[in-house]
Parts: sequence; structure tokens; C-alpha cells
Amino acid sequence: MKTVSENRAFGGVQGVYTHASDVCGGDMTFGLFLPEEAEQGAVPLVWYLSGLTCTHENAMVKAGAQRWAADHGLALVFPDTSPRGPGVADDPAYDLGQGAGFYVNATEAPWAPHFRMWDYVTEELPRVLFNAFPLDEERQSITGHSMGGHGALTIAMSLPGRFRSVSAFAPIANPTQSDWGRKQLTAYLGADTAKWAAHDATLLMKKRGFDGPMLIDQGASDQFIDLLRPEALAEAIAAHRQGAVFRMQKGYDHSYFFVATFMEHHMGFHAAALNV
Amino acid sequence: MKTVSENRAFGGVQGVYTHASDVCGGDMTFGLFLPEEAEQGAVPLVWYLSGLTCTHENAMVKAGAQRWAADHGLALVFPDTSPRGPGVADDPAYDLGQGAGFYVNATEAPWAPHFRMWDYVTEELPRVLFNAFPLDEERQSITGHSMGGHGALTIAMSLPGRFRSVSAFAPIANPTQSDWGRKQLTAYLGADTAKWAAHDATLLMKKRGFDGPMLIDQGASDQFIDLLRPEALAEAIAAHRQGAVFRMQKGYDHSYFFVATFMEHHMGFHAAALNV
Repeated sequence: MKTVSENRAFGGVQGVYTHASDVCGGDMTFGLFLPEEAEQGAVPLVWYLSGLTCTHENAMVKAGAQRWAADHGLALVFPDTSPRGPGVADDPAYDLGQGAGFYVNATEAPWAPHFRMWDYVTEELPRVLFNAFPLDEERQSITGHSMGGHGALTIAMSLPGRFRSVSAFAPIANPTQSDWGRKQLTAYLGADTAKWAAHDATLLMKKRGFDGPMLIDQGASDQFIDLLRPEALAEAIAAHRQGAVFRMQKGYDHSYFFVATFMEHHMGFHAAALNV
Repeated sequence: MKTVSENRAFGGVQGVYTHASDVCGGDMTFGLFLPEEAEQGAVPLVWYLSGLTCTHENAMVKAGAQRWAADHGLALVFPDTSPRGPGVADDPAYDLGQGAGFYVNATEAPWAPHFRMWDYVTEELPRVLFNAFPLDEERQSITGHSMGGHGALTIAMSLPGRFRSVSAFAPIANPTQSDWGRKQLTAYLGADTAKWAAHDATLLMKKRGFDGPMLIDQGASDQFIDLLRPEALAEAIAAHRQGAVFRMQKGYDHSYFFVATFMEHHMGFHAAALNV
């Protein structure tokens, strides 16, 4: 693992690291914020999964999360959203290929060799992190924005016991019924829609839900709201009797200004679930 | 004036606007955060001047200032750091020309026709702002980072009564004695060093100081600290008996992570001076 940069931030350290990924077949980069408390011992970890077009960097510099993570003594990891590089398949569209991994393991050409973001985020990167940094594997929570909110919700519901709490900012909530989903799931997983169900937060909510607290914020003026389908997830939450807070925020759009505005609440929510 | 974007943020609005600038001879872009209180009437205004290579956007998305401005009911303006465009002189170096206006009125070729950032920030942009937005001209404060800290300090000391308080993050504190200064002041103002004195915070501090509270943060691990010369300004503050808080922050570098870390204190400091 190679250190790209380390900057003092809010009493802790904001680092960027690159490592060779067997799962993705190439180098992967992530950001990791460690609070001051990590100098004394293992700290809880919150995962932040980013959206379409993002790298590890966008939320790290724009979401304002470190301030609140530092307040609560939480570490934050910012993974990349796909494999990258000249040897990795890509597509001219912003919403497919590099920057658009959708947190699935691709089975179809040309994506299958590298696009294994599900395994990367749920298996390989955790091992890298827990081996190298003072992080408490028993205390993890997860959040994300847009495509990353989709990743956070689907991963949290699929791995019971892994995460104490889950939250999302404007998640892609029902991708099997949206152009943000059908296109990518077809490309990565093939045309058999039965294989898509494991990657749809609304379907997972109907089937099993999440065994912990859940917080979702959605901007009422989100320019992509028709693609996100929050109404499908809200209905499923209510129908499943899932313990959750679903907030429709008047006036807010899909931008990082929206994410940053409500980050304080999300970090406080996870801190409470993580008993810090 | 043209609205480039407006995003709901922290209960207020983060806007970006472009206007025709007579002073700079072309279009200029700025960011303006208006807190929720601006819906009810005029609010105090804090100026944030940015550093080398920055546009209006960097601090607007990375400094995390809106959270605290919203808390205190403050507006924030983020001007650009120079005139821009194909018809505007430039230099291949990152620290001269576009993105490096140094908050002076250039008198030398090829810079003189457009590079008039002093007049832009102190005269033209204030008129644009106070005419178009609910801002209280009697309640202004100013801050900035690096070259922008230089701008904030020199402007605040040169316009007594204009600003209630001044702060700076890692300012270029003594440009007449630094390679961040001598090069640019020679290019913009010519070789007569007598003309440079009005644009050196240390020299202005020795001569007149500031008639209000002053707060300066400097990272002790700043990679540019030898170019910034904080020791010269600290000495001048003490010698002048200027009321000020000068903080050398151990472990912090020159990045926006440093700026974001201490932004809460700076906004609280200005809010106190602005009686909000």
C-alpha cells in the first residue's frame, strides 16, 4: 500500500492511499479519515460510498463529513466508485463503466474482469483497512449518496450484522425500475432481471429490511428525483414496518450542498448507533 | 447579472453569478451564500478571498464555511482571484496572471488593462452586491487564505471603518520579502519597491494596524511557510500592540483541510464582531 497524501484535519489525519487490488485487477485508491482518538486505539468506521462520476476524492473534499466524524471519534473511508485505468473497460457515457461501478460484481463482457465493486467494498477493502489501520471491525456503519446510497442500502441489507446503522443521501432507490439501473444492471449482470433483485434497495426492503436504524434524506427539488424513485422505497419501508426515518427536504437538490447540509445529522445518527 | 446556479444549502442559498465588470474589462464570476435570514432582511456580509490558482469555486465547495455562516446568519461572498478569458493576459506559471491577481491594480504591461483586483474587490463588486442582494453594508468583515489572506489583511488595514473584523488562514504575510510577492509585485506594479508597500501586510501593520479584532491561523507544517513569512507579521503585530490572536497550529499544512478545520472559529469570530 502506498501513501498518496496525508493532511492534518480536525485534529486527525485525512489520508489517501493506493493499493494493488486482486478483486479489481489493478490499483485502487481510497481516502481514509482517522480521528485523533485513533492514536490511542481502534475507532469505529463509517463507510461513505459515492455516486456516479465520483472518485474517492469528491466527498472527501466537499461533503464536510470530517468535522462531525472528528466530533464523534469516527473514522471515515471513501472508496472509489469503480476500477480505473487504461486497461479497464469504459464507456463514453457518464453513467456506465469507469466512475459508475454500481456496487455489483459484473458477469458480462467487457466488464467482468475488473468491475467487481461489490466484492471490493464488502471483502477486499475491509481486509486492507482492518489490517493496516486502528479500526474497530465490530463497529461499522455505512452511508452514501445517489449511486452510493444505493450501494450503502443494498450492502447493509445483504450483510446482516455487519453494519450497526445505515443511511443514504438521495439514493438510487429502485434501480430495476429506472434508467439509472436498468441500463447498468443489463450491462453488468445481463438481461435476466432475476439477477438484478439483489441490487435494488426497494426489493430488498420488501424482502428482508435492515436489522438496525435507517436514515434517508431526499431533496424535494432533486433534479434527478424521477430516476431515484424515493416513493418506491418509502412505500416499501412503511409496508415492511422497517424502523427508519425518511425525510423529504424541501428546496434541496442533488448536489453536495444538499449532502453537506445534512451530514451533521447523519454522522450523529451513526455515532449514536455505534455507541460513541 | 446572470445566475449561473443556485443550490439550497444549510437553509439558505448558495448562488453563483456572472456580471460584466467595467473594472476588469470582462465578465467576472462570484459565489454568494445567503443564509435563511436574508429572506427577512439585510444580513451581514463576510468576504472570503481565495489563494493562488483558485476561482470563486474552490472555497465555496471545500472550505465548509456555509455551515457556520448559516449558524450565525451571515452571508459569504467568494470573488474570483483574477480576470479571466482569452482576451486577458496570462503567464504559464501558476503564480502569475490568471488565478493570481494578488489583489492589486496593475500598472504595467501586459497586465494593466484587466488586472485591477483591488478596485474590483473594494469598489465594483461591493456595489454589485449591495444593489442586488439583501446585504447590510454597515456590517462587513473579511477573511482569506494564502494570497487571499494577503488580500484580506491589506484591504482591511487600508480601508479603516469598512470592516468590523479581519482574519486570515496562512496569509502571504510579507510579500515584499518573499518569492510569493516580489515576482508578482514587480510584474504588476513595476520595479519601484516604494509602490509595493501598500500591499504588504507586515509593512501596513507596522505603519497603521487595524482598528478592530484580528485572527490569524497558520499551520506549523505548512509546506509554503518560508514563502508566507508569518514570523514577520507576528513580530509586527506585537510591536504595534495590535489587538490580535495569532495561532501557530501544530501539524497542519497549507491545504483546505487546514482551512476547513478552523473555519468554525473564524466564522464565530466574525459573527461576534458583527454583533450577530
